[in-house]
Amino acid sequence: MKASRRYTLTLSCPDRVGIVAAVSGFFASHGGWIVEASYHADTNTGRFFMRQEILADSLPFDVIGLRSHFAAVATEFAMDWQVSDSARKKRLVILVSKQDHCLNDLLHRWRSGELEVDIPCVISNHEDLRSFVEWHGIPFHYVAMPNLEESGKAAAFAKIASLFDQCQGDTLVLARFMQILPPDLCRRYAGRVINIHHSFLPSFAGAKPYHQAFERGVKLIGATCHYVTEALDDGPIIEQDTVRIDHGDSVEDMVRYGRDIEKTVLARGLRYHVESRVLVSGNKTVVFK
Amino acid sequence: MKASRRYTLTLSCPDRVGIVAAVSGFFASHGGWIVEASYHADTNTGRFFMRQEILADSLPFDVIGLRSHFAAVATEFAMDWQVSDSARKKRLVILVSKQDHCLNDLLHRWRSGELEVDIPCVISNHEDLRSFVEWHGIPFHYVAMPNLEESGKAAAFAKIASLFDQCQGDTLVLARFMQILPPDLCRRYAGRVINIHHSFLPSFAGAKPYHQAFERGVKLIGATCHYVTEALDDGPIIEQDTVRIDHGDSVEDMVRYGRDIEKTVLARGLRYHVESRVLVSGNKTVVFK
Amino acid sequence: MKASRRYTLTLSCPDRVGIVAAVSGFFASHGGWIVEASYHADTNTGRFFMRQEILADSLPFDVIGLRSHFAAVATEFAMDWQVSDSARKKRLVILVSKQDHCLNDLLHRWRSGELEVDIPCVISNHEDLRSFVEWHGIPFHYVAMPNLEESGKAAAFAKIASLFDQCQGDTLVLARFMQILPPDLCRRYAGRVINIHHSFLPSFAGAKPYHQAFERGVKLIGATCHYVTEALDDGPIIEQDTVRIDHGDSVEDMVRYGRDIEKTVLARGLRYHVESRVLVSGNKTVVFK
Amino acid sequence: MKASRRYTLTLSCPDRVGIVAAVSGFFASHGGWIVEASYHADTNTGRFFMRQEILADSLPFDVIGLRSHFAAVATEFAMDWQVSDSARKKRLVILVSKQDHCLNDLLHRWRSGELEVDIPCVISNHEDLRSFVEWHGIPFHYVAMPNLEESGKAAAFAKIASLFDQCQGDTLVLARFMQILPPDLCRRYAGRVINIHHSFLPSFAGAKPYHQAFERGVKLIGATCHYVTEALDDGPIIEQDTVRIDHGDSVEDMVRYGRDIEKTVLARGLRYHVESRVLVSGNKTVVFK
Repeated sequence: MKASRRYTLTLSCPDRVGIVAAVSGFFASHGGWIVEASYHADTNTGRFFMRQEILADSLPFDVIGLRSHFAAVATEFAMDWQVSDSARKKRLVILVSKQDHCLNDLLHRWRSGELEVDIPCVISNHEDLRSFVEWHGIPFHYVAMPNLEESGKAAAFAKIASLFDQCQGDTLVLARFMQILPPDLCRRYAGRVINIHHSFLPSFAGAKPYHQAFERGVKLIGATCHYVTEALDDGPIIEQDTVRIDHGDSVEDMVRYGRDIEKTVLARGLRYHVESRVLVSGNKTVVFK
Repeated sequence: MKASRRYTLTLSCPDRVGIVAAVSGFFASHGGWIVEASYHADTNTGRFFMRQEILADSLPFDVIGLRSHFAAVATEFAMDWQVSDSARKKRLVILVSKQDHCLNDLLHRWRSGELEVDIPCVISNHEDLRSFVEWHGIPFHYVAMPNLEESGKAAAFAKIASLFDQCQGDTLVLARFMQILPPDLCRRYAGRVINIHHSFLPSFAGAKPYHQAFERGVKLIGATCHYVTEALDDGPIIEQDTVRIDHGDSVEDMVRYGRDIEKTVLARGLRYHVESRVLVSGNKTVVFK
Repeated sequence: MKASRRYTLTLSCPDRVGIVAAVSGFFASHGGWIVEASYHADTNTGRFFMRQEILADSLPFDVIGLRSHFAAVATEFAMDWQVSDSARKKRLVILVSKQDHCLNDLLHRWRSGELEVDIPCVISNHEDLRSFVEWHGIPFHYVAMPNLEESGKAAAFAKIASLFDQCQGDTLVLARFMQILPPDLCRRYAGRVINIHHSFLPSFAGAKPYHQAFERGVKLIGATCHYVTEALDDGPIIEQDTVRIDHGDSVEDMVRYGRDIEKTVLARGLRYHVESRVLVSGNKTVVFK
Repeated sequence: MKASRRYTLTLSCPDRVGIVAAVSGFFASHGGWIVEASYHADTNTGRFFMRQEILADSLPFDVIGLRSHFAAVATEFAMDWQVSDSARKKRLVILVSKQDHCLNDLLHRWRSGELEVDIPCVISNHEDLRSFVEWHGIPFHYVAMPNLEESGKAAAFAKIASLFDQCQGDTLVLARFMQILPPDLCRRYAGRVINIHHSFLPSFAGAKPYHQAFERGVKLIGATCHYVTEALDDGPIIEQDTVRIDHGDSVEDMVRYGRDIEKTVLARGLRYHVESRVLVSGNKTVVFK
């Protein structure tokens, strides 16, 4: 049932009377069967956000036709809009270091069909996970990442960008990559790079968040899935969650609890992104679950 | 901001192309500003559910006018529909016994303006809570409830129904009332009587759910807010939640944890009901949060 | 059952072999029936923490006798220790401004017997809550708090301290008091002043945390119950919790959700404190639930 | 740090004064360093439960010596007791069918060192997961399971029991095995077979719990990790959890959410079991987390 082909329209525009009527009227006039519809009016910015999921077979045209027919409505309302097609899977490139709990989780969701994407390759600055990735039939690229030398780092990131472009990646996932993406790549792939940070941001940004949490004596720890921007750990938040700890938990215990919440939060955030449920609004997100 | 007057349209009808277009087109043609819109298509029953919240001032007619203008759309789609007006507060009559945690919570939400209802009276089979209720300026009615004698019980419930009718109650809330509503009242006030049950239904229906939970050794306990029907603890569920316990917790501890979850679940469920967010569908509910 | 009189011993000391044996041996030698026992070894500081709850009737001496007999054990292990007696209720003085959700919650727990304390008085810088407090038979003191003038503020806090001392208060609870306690009182009542902050600290310390959370676009909001120290919102954390929000929630919605979590977190934290379950360790807490 | 060798003593006995003193006195007299200590007095049954974790190197004897020295204390208090040694890993045999989310999760925890056990083999009634299991270097045994024929089923289970015995399995984990263990094996391996059931028991025992949950219209679904007994889905519960759903979620959505909670609950329950944190008490468990 989930397999029936769908077009997903997402848009934002200045709020005014008649937007929903115009869009739903457009679809109704072509016999379009709306499977899911979501709206959000941001009263602070006066902007309206919308997501519609339509059964492809109910429309008399294909995705190109849909785009060309809808353009008139979009222009009238000054919409910022996109249409995605469920038959064209998003292509995720995953970056990892040595820790594999997020990778293991994502690859399982992929091979069980839950995460409907293509994974053209996995890139890592360590060789450790090659065998596991290749068992899945997914190409694994090792890119050495010098620890200190800046020019070597720049070359490594240039190599990563080149691999991402070559395999026509849509989204770059930092699945506990432990390296900071350089500003030029943050700008170049804005809205297309997703990170999982192992704290409940904005608390404990930067390095060693579990150590920071231990020092402060918090009673819950968390994880945050967000778009990467030039400001470290400060991009638009897609998803977060927390888990209870207590005084008896060491940093090592937090790391263990943290792994479970990191992979869950990343998987949820990534699913929202892949299903075009996330619309960026300034430094915040609208997430139509 | 929340105070601006709104009309809320809720409806269900057989699903087909064009429902959203017709409804949103209707409002757009009259300049209606939609504040919130929610949809649900039940693919099992083929029925479509919808809730629209419109700024009253954006329309050129009052609620009577809205109803008469909308009737044509409703007829075309064979809608089961209602319009409520935020300026006409729902009237809640609360039934209690001796335990007052839910009552205390509801009355606080009422006096702080969070729960936007009128409370024409509180009815109890005990005198214990009279002073607290009357401090709020709310009439308190004592109705003796014989424990065993059936005819006395019937008379007591007739008295309760009569008080409810006299004060033009919309909704009857069993806030830990500890008495089973007779079948005739369940039918007469179908969809208008809300109960809080102190278990995660369908587990532990009936008497002494915390004792049942203790005996079974569950690791979480819960509470359920539901519409009352003739089948005990089996009506459409509006809201539920659970809380963690462990082997060290006695029945008394469960009762204590339970109070917190009961009042939270009742308050949430009641808010959904009062804001016309709950649509009943067979023995289930659609809750547009 | 809960009503049987108990002595509660809490202690900390340098960790070494034999502490538990010495303490439990002491109680066993006097026939003491241990109802609850908790331990924590802080491997970072090498300090050991312990809490024992003993049935008063099982011992051949009263609380004075217990203290004098136990002193030898305490000295041997260089313990920092205290014994409390359930028959001597802690005395809480509550400070409030205009918002009453925490106060309403605490007073209900008090009058239902769940929170086993004495409340000698409530102090406020507004008259709004006088009637509600006095309905409970609890004295209400109004202390004017000038907004800008520093000397007036100092006088007001001196008055508050004087009221607290006069009624022999053990613990001062800032139940959304909205005023910053001056450093001298923080020092004077160290470990005896409890605050509820309406954010998940260390995120959003200081003023208007819900506005800060809204601006940052977090997906969960929280509340923190902590001991007050001179560093604003930076004292030892006793309890925290979070609740999910989404893009559709305004600051006003957050305030509403926040009230529920604030009162729950304060009630839990306060219960731990009142039952001598909280041991301060540097700027962190050990909480034996 | 976690790697230092430990002995874990678990016991239960009739409650009386002096148990903790005797046990901690025993360890103190031999210089034993207690790392973790937990107690529970069941006031309903009058039975006392205890778990002590001791650093192996702090004692002057090995695990055999510990057992023989402790026997006198155990006899005095009529204890039901066991000592486990962290250097002797428990041996888990995992049973699966086709669904692999729990298996994938457990094998990741095993290969990352989080779940400290040996896995001598995985047994399945389908060939689907052979390659994945064998990639880990773990033997995979296929045992055909006839659907209807009773004698074939008995033979299949005899084969499973034989494999379990041959590889000296300690614990048999039904990781979504979808077959009901025959009564004779339930009895033979009492307290050693762990199942994950995909509902919040006692609700929705038996087949197709997500369908049952969908029909009833509950607002949360759950999972339960329990010891297997002859009574279907009725054994002692080790761990449970729930997750929120709403009216928009189909049975397929529940299955998807359910997978996440099933694997989390199984992993937690299994960890408690493996670390000797679970003591069975009648049809309930004491879980020392």
